[in-house]
Amino acid sequence: MGLKTKAQYIESLRKLKPTVYMFGEKIENVVDNPRIRAGINATAATYELAEIEEHRDMMTTKSRFTGEAINRFTNPPQSIEDLVMRVKINRTLGGWVGTCFQRCTGLDCLGTLSIVTYDIDKKYGSHYNDRFIDFLKYVQKNDLAANAGVTDVKGDRSLSPQEQEDKDLYLRVVERRNDGIVVRGAKAHQTGSLSAHEIIVLPTRALRKGEEDYAVAFAIPSDTRGLIHVVGRNSLDTRELEGVDCGNMYYSKYCPTLIFNDVFVPWERVFMCGEVEFASEAVGRFSAYHRQSHGGCKSGKIDAMIGAALMMMDYNGTAKVGHHKEKIVDMIYRAETLFGCSLASSYEGRKEPSGTYFIDPVLANASKIHEGKEMAEVGRILTDIAGGYVADLPSDKDLAIPDVGPLIEKYLKGVANIPTKDRIRMLRLVEKMVMESADTISDIHGGGSAAAHRITILRESDLEYKKSCAKRLAGIE
Amino acid sequence: MGLKTKAQYIESLRKLKPTVYMFGEKIENVVDNPRIRAGINATAATYELAEIEEHRDMMTTKSRFTGEAINRFTNPPQSIEDLVMRVKINRTLGGWVGTCFQRCTGLDCLGTLSIVTYDIDKKYGSHYNDRFIDFLKYVQKNDLAANAGVTDVKGDRSLSPQEQEDKDLYLRVVERRNDGIVVRGAKAHQTGSLSAHEIIVLPTRALRKGEEDYAVAFAIPSDTRGLIHVVGRNSLDTRELEGVDCGNMYYSKYCPTLIFNDVFVPWERVFMCGEVEFASEAVGRFSAYHRQSHGGCKSGKIDAMIGAALMMMDYNGTAKVGHHKEKIVDMIYRAETLFGCSLASSYEGRKEPSGTYFIDPVLANASKIHEGKEMAEVGRILTDIAGGYVADLPSDKDLAIPDVGPLIEKYLKGVANIPTKDRIRMLRLVEKMVMESADTISDIHGGGSAAAHRITILRESDLEYKKSCAKRLAGIE
Amino acid sequence: MGLKTKAQYIESLRKLKPTVYMFGEKIENVVDNPRIRAGINATAATYELAEIEEHRDMMTTKSRFTGEAINRFTNPPQSIEDLVMRVKINRTLGGWVGTCFQRCTGLDCLGTLSIVTYDIDKKYGSHYNDRFIDFLKYVQKNDLAANAGVTDVKGDRSLSPQEQEDKDLYLRVVERRNDGIVVRGAKAHQTGSLSAHEIIVLPTRALRKGEEDYAVAFAIPSDTRGLIHVVGRNSLDTRELEGVDCGNMYYSKYCPTLIFNDVFVPWERVFMCGEVEFASEAVGRFSAYHRQSHGGCKSGKIDAMIGAALMMMDYNGTAKVGHHKEKIVDMIYRAETLFGCSLASSYEGRKEPSGTYFIDPVLANASKIHEGKEMAEVGRILTDIAGGYVADLPSDKDLAIPDVGPLIEKYLKGVANIPTKDRIRMLRLVEKMVMESADTISDIHGGGSAAAHRITILRESDLEYKKSCAKRLAGIE
Amino acid sequence: MGLKTKAQYIESLRKLKPTVYMFGEKIENVVDNPRIRAGINATAATYELAEIEEHRDMMTTKSRFTGEAINRFTNPPQSIEDLVMRVKINRTLGGWVGTCFQRCTGLDCLGTLSIVTYDIDKKYGSHYNDRFIDFLKYVQKNDLAANAGVTDVKGDRSLSPQEQEDKDLYLRVVERRNDGIVVRGAKAHQTGSLSAHEIIVLPTRALRKGEEDYAVAFAIPSDTRGLIHVVGRNSLDTRELEGVDCGNMYYSKYCPTLIFNDVFVPWERVFMCGEVEFASEAVGRFSAYHRQSHGGCKSGKIDAMIGAALMMMDYNGTAKVGHHKEKIVDMIYRAETLFGCSLASSYEGRKEPSGTYFIDPVLANASKIHEGKEMAEVGRILTDIAGGYVADLPSDKDLAIPDVGPLIEKYLKGVANIPTKDRIRMLRLVEKMVMESADTISDIHGGGSAAAHRITILRESDLEYKKSCAKRLAGIE
Repeated sequence: MGLKTKAQYIESLRKLKPTVYMFGEKIENVVDNPRIRAGINATAATYELAEIEEHRDMMTTKSRFTGEAINRFTNPPQSIEDLVMRVKINRTLGGWVGTCFQRCTGLDCLGTLSIVTYDIDKKYGSHYNDRFIDFLKYVQKNDLAANAGVTDVKGDRSLSPQEQEDKDLYLRVVERRNDGIVVRGAKAHQTGSLSAHEIIVLPTRALRKGEEDYAVAFAIPSDTRGLIHVVGRNSLDTRELEGVDCGNMYYSKYCPTLIFNDVFVPWERVFMCGEVEFASEAVGRFSAYHRQSHGGCKSGKIDAMIGAALMMMDYNGTAKVGHHKEKIVDMIYRAETLFGCSLASSYEGRKEPSGTYFIDPVLANASKIHEGKEMAEVGRILTDIAGGYVADLPSDKDLAIPDVGPLIEKYLKGVANIPTKDRIRMLRLVEKMVMESADTISDIHGGGSAAAHRITILRESDLEYKKSCAKRLAGIE
Repeated sequence: MGLKTKAQYIESLRKLKPTVYMFGEKIENVVDNPRIRAGINATAATYELAEIEEHRDMMTTKSRFTGEAINRFTNPPQSIEDLVMRVKINRTLGGWVGTCFQRCTGLDCLGTLSIVTYDIDKKYGSHYNDRFIDFLKYVQKNDLAANAGVTDVKGDRSLSPQEQEDKDLYLRVVERRNDGIVVRGAKAHQTGSLSAHEIIVLPTRALRKGEEDYAVAFAIPSDTRGLIHVVGRNSLDTRELEGVDCGNMYYSKYCPTLIFNDVFVPWERVFMCGEVEFASEAVGRFSAYHRQSHGGCKSGKIDAMIGAALMMMDYNGTAKVGHHKEKIVDMIYRAETLFGCSLASSYEGRKEPSGTYFIDPVLANASKIHEGKEMAEVGRILTDIAGGYVADLPSDKDLAIPDVGPLIEKYLKGVANIPTKDRIRMLRLVEKMVMESADTISDIHGGGSAAAHRITILRESDLEYKKSCAKRLAGIE
Repeated sequence: MGLKTKAQYIESLRKLKPTVYMFGEKIENVVDNPRIRAGINATAATYELAEIEEHRDMMTTKSRFTGEAINRFTNPPQSIEDLVMRVKINRTLGGWVGTCFQRCTGLDCLGTLSIVTYDIDKKYGSHYNDRFIDFLKYVQKNDLAANAGVTDVKGDRSLSPQEQEDKDLYLRVVERRNDGIVVRGAKAHQTGSLSAHEIIVLPTRALRKGEEDYAVAFAIPSDTRGLIHVVGRNSLDTRELEGVDCGNMYYSKYCPTLIFNDVFVPWERVFMCGEVEFASEAVGRFSAYHRQSHGGCKSGKIDAMIGAALMMMDYNGTAKVGHHKEKIVDMIYRAETLFGCSLASSYEGRKEPSGTYFIDPVLANASKIHEGKEMAEVGRILTDIAGGYVADLPSDKDLAIPDVGPLIEKYLKGVANIPTKDRIRMLRLVEKMVMESADTISDIHGGGSAAAHRITILRESDLEYKKSCAKRLAGIE
Repeated sequence: MGLKTKAQYIESLRKLKPTVYMFGEKIENVVDNPRIRAGINATAATYELAEIEEHRDMMTTKSRFTGEAINRFTNPPQSIEDLVMRVKINRTLGGWVGTCFQRCTGLDCLGTLSIVTYDIDKKYGSHYNDRFIDFLKYVQKNDLAANAGVTDVKGDRSLSPQEQEDKDLYLRVVERRNDGIVVRGAKAHQTGSLSAHEIIVLPTRALRKGEEDYAVAFAIPSDTRGLIHVVGRNSLDTRELEGVDCGNMYYSKYCPTLIFNDVFVPWERVFMCGEVEFASEAVGRFSAYHRQSHGGCKSGKIDAMIGAALMMMDYNGTAKVGHHKEKIVDMIYRAETLFGCSLASSYEGRKEPSGTYFIDPVLANASKIHEGKEMAEVGRILTDIAGGYVADLPSDKDLAIPDVGPLIEKYLKGVANIPTKDRIRMLRLVEKMVMESADTISDIHGGGSAAAHRITILRESDLEYKKSCAKRLAGIE
């Protein structure tokens, strides 16, 4: 027990026996499947960095609950410093793995539940928070990775959960038993669900009276009976299976849809059950935490993207081209505004009654809209600098063919003293960072749709104060 | 002879025996390789539309050279109407195939050479234009598809062709013989080179005295000895090979690198050889024609993207959501500004001494910068509207598994009366249109880099006139 | 009669005796008021250019109605060429005056009424078109300038005209008499109403049964009894009054609010009265024509802005700075996309039943959204290039003070061989083009709000066609 | 001595006798000139807020140097808290005055000199820091406002200071005497120089050997003999002089050019003299501090702009219009990203050897580029929401005319229960915030040109780290 090494983490996943389908096959050995393994490797980096002397202080802290050293990914933030360190961890990891490391949403859930269970208990005298703290201690002691089951599949977006023809399109309680509940439904975009030991489920939207069955939060092991992981397709997803042309040598991202086919959850793992008025708070806090996290990881990914742009300039012989340098600045300033906004939301956080710290939600949500627009621009600039081979570089498999390989190598040469293979590798990395769908589309849809975040910003901003500024200056009483 | 049907076109390709490598294999049967076939299908649409009553008048015209009915894709524009019809053809085809149809660059070369060979002859008393007209008649009579070999691989971009350590990094004449020339080099991003009967080569940049070997233009069959097509990787490129999850049911795009490994070209197919001062004109005209073409095909692709967005709104139940409707307008106006600018460059074209019409280069190049920025935004909006499943939709292969298929179908349901399979298909189409690299990256790099086009705009604009406007208004003589 | 010279035009205005208030005063002599005169000068340029040999062919044509030579500003377009020439005239004039020339909206009304009166007559057997043609001949024979009274003041935007507490907030007929009608209301933003001989009024929005009093169109002389011009404030509006620091040496723009205080209109000048179902068509056509016009004049203004940027680069010594040259391209391509879209809407126009030509409304309205966003960017770039003195340049009045004038001149020196006064003049012109509110805000609000144009685009686009493209490609029947 | 009240501040200015020219006149009574007074009022707000109980803790702190309570505007930041409070003060003040409050650049100089004088002394054993601390204590004890003389007029930008034909185009030492130095030159854009007691001068650019005369920093009273304030023109600058249509009821901004016509500076006020290698550090730190300040004040101004937009929606009856609400969010998120980035640069600041704290320069400079682009968009949105009357609202002077005033009031009515005068006032405020040049152009040019900041970002970013991220992921050693 205690902090896991990277190796221990991967071993621990071997012991799980989840039900998994991918590309038409049932996957028995998840850990050694190269497609899924690339995702597991990314999560493993959160363990690996905690082993590295230089990063250990940033990555670990002492638990308020267990008194022991823990990985910060199991730590619902207990101070402003915790909030800030999270953003810095994410930036470092973003540059380290060049994609999503898939351990954030679990932490978002831990933070959310440590606040919301407390608030529910205060209103109802229930004991969700005790249960949750027990679960939290278990996670911390075993240094577990968790995944957030938030986004329901939603069916007809113009209808509420109970108005759907099929009532299961939002996850719901279908049976209440003495020992627990049975739930049915499906959660989409479950990034890293097979890299996680635990799946933590929250409601996906505000609910109202009559929708009690949908107001449910809980945690279960990722290999629980009835839980089915269907790994969806991403662009470039066969590259790891082919074992070539991966671009990112170590890491990737995958996103299952998680089907809860009448899954039993024991009461000690149920953290909300029927308290409809807290659904909105749960999803709102989760989303805000998740926006904070993106400000770190995405600016870190941009670091790697800027690095790739600079390397391509070196390799192509354009390092001194003025408009290329301007474009590097255009990438940097976008990374920094994203990072800065996320940092600020952390520094401006506040302590909730439960003792957990929450970020400033307006600052956190503002970064969402910013990210949704600006990351696409960063990718566009990187493509512009790198050149057209981002679209259609010959495969390394062709390089290995004696008849044509040497010719390809001859003609893919850039600057004379740079090995052609390095130029090829860097172009392939650019392709990965720009054209891989799972990670790029999370710039837009990660943490929920922009529309939801826009509503949050409007609600959380002090509009009356702003009106009073204008009225005073205009001389209107 | 005469206009080919779609079927005849495909049969004609079967007779060619090009040298092709793809993903580590030598491809003997190009036409039935599903990856390449999807590209051939897109080019075939240019033949198919000429068969359809409704589109025939738009697609065909009478040749000034043969006096016979020809497909406009073999017609160097001979009137303003020809210029305009091209843009309209491209818009229609863009909506028809939802991607690149890969027959434009050949036409760009025909237009370019019909002007430039004439201009060279006028200066030198050479006979390139006669040769070219013979070739053109051959193309027109046989309704051939051609491909443009323009973009050299370029090596170190800070060095000119002859300054490169390896002199072959720009294609060059390595031997002059009585019966023809031998050329060596490689051309990148050769979209549709296997869908083409002929490869037409032009210089890729301005050249100066001493670089005569690089000032070469010619045409050769796509299966000429020594010519090697290496089909590069695109995102989503295995989908056609897997035969599933293609998104676009019929069409795709592929982009070989073309290696000219000491290829012989007979003199009657040589259209420029050593006239360095015309290299700049050749590549400039080619690029401008190609910008004109993009204004059509890309606005046509946006039509399909808007259609997909509207369908997703219908399927998701968001057809009445205000901000979604605003986003549809944001897509439309970008399509129309692109289309409008390209149309205007056509209407404002002028007759060159050779009799061929050339578009207004400032208007044509302006659309390039516009496209480079705005197409990315259109894709972003489509992704926003369609939802997160663009990133990670389960494979149709999983739908076919009895244990899990029905569950996937249950949970991917949108609006109740819409078949889930239709919603899945539309999401998959969105993935294709947004995340397929060959087509999306051409928004940025197609027809050469934006930097080159920016220089052209600056050179072609009447800056002195603009200064005179300002000076007059400021009262400065 | 016949074409007026610039001098004759100005003399003709002297004969009018409009009721005018400006900045707290009743203005008796409009023509010699320097603030208003700067606007009159801009309209006068539309007469002046017709006198200049080089521009005469562009500026004039033969009337279909009078058979005589007329200024195209009095010509409802009778051919595609007329539509196209309009855009080119506007571009030339935009560069010539560097601001709005205030004769377009009248022409927009002539085009609109020549179509709509015909359509009404066809439905009702009325004789509006005859009346209108008589009026048109009068305008053409006397080469009159007209102004469009379209934008009602509107009161509470959430209420329809008849729901307003004050029924006059949309202009309406308050009395129907044997000899004519009496109207009451007010029209905002009446650019150039004092430079115009005639005011032409159209409804400002779609109307429905019960709103017959608001469905009224007519024309009256600008000095009709009861008509009150209240010249509103623009930024920089005192400069002409002070006679110094004008920036633009000759031209400016002013925008009265026009109050119709129970104004009598004889029947022969009434072109619509009660036909509510045609109100929408009238305002829609007017707006579309006006968008077309902006594509010309605003790209022409950008020509002058680019010229000013280039001059400032010459004067500041930054002509060789790379990022400044990039910015020039960023200005040019925006001018050209705007111009191109407007040209295309003209070339793609069509003949209406009345014989008048109408532009393509989707292309015309697309340019509106584009303009609204991009003109602001053009101004921003110009300011960036010109430098901080755009904000706070000392007055020429201070230059004239012996104690300090020479010191100011010493320190405002740029490049050594350039007279400081020229640099000052150019900076002042930049201030005028960037910070003058009347003209810059018309980029956003000219021709109605963007929201209205967005709705038009949505309605006029063939959305079903776009859906069919997507469905075909996705394989959905 | 000690903290000044607003009233005491204004009285203290009355005692100064600066040499001032404005719009062709010598101004003897600066404080009661309504144009200048509006600017003084804005600076006075920095005193006023310190008097208000609610804001006192934010506005004041205890001096490390005098041990007494001081206004934070005289406090070179001595802690992270000081850095953070500055941003919050600026945001509050931005909303309070709706424009620039013109006391920031002085503080930027105090921070800069407290660092740089220390660094110079360390290298040379000089005593600049002692002198500076004495000056600082004087400023703190008397609660003085200071202004930064940084931006030289610069002449030909392609030449260095000594290459200029007129050597005075960068301020320089023309005489070194026993008791002090004599300086000559001019500084542009001296916002609030007449609201300041002291003018602090720094070099404007990096300097090299041979340019010692230009490496000079000092402070002098704003009414020193030989110092001439020439108040430049801003758009809307006559409104205060007319006493009507001001928009902002209390505050405005003005920007003199400051001419140093052989001004004597005693040695005790000289803080750098000839140490060329520190010029770059001085201007770099000043600019970075100034970027930090803009993140606060501009987001505060946006608060007032959002308030004005919301009020206009209330007044126009568009409060429930969906796209207007979206636009409010578009304004909010821009305010918050700007604020967040500035806050983060403060929280991430560090202690310099002198004890003063400096912000993170990459984060601070990133906000500059962001501001330069996004503030223009905020103004555009506000104009869009408010409506066309931002351009051409009738003057309040016309409202006062019996013949026409009541008609204007009748027709400018918005929502029925809102006094028309309030709607007019709010429209006028919008005009002020959007179209007043001094404040809006500082979004682009404030704190130096964007180009300079871009170079700083490139230099201060760890590009090698970014490259190492990319190389590791691509598998390149």
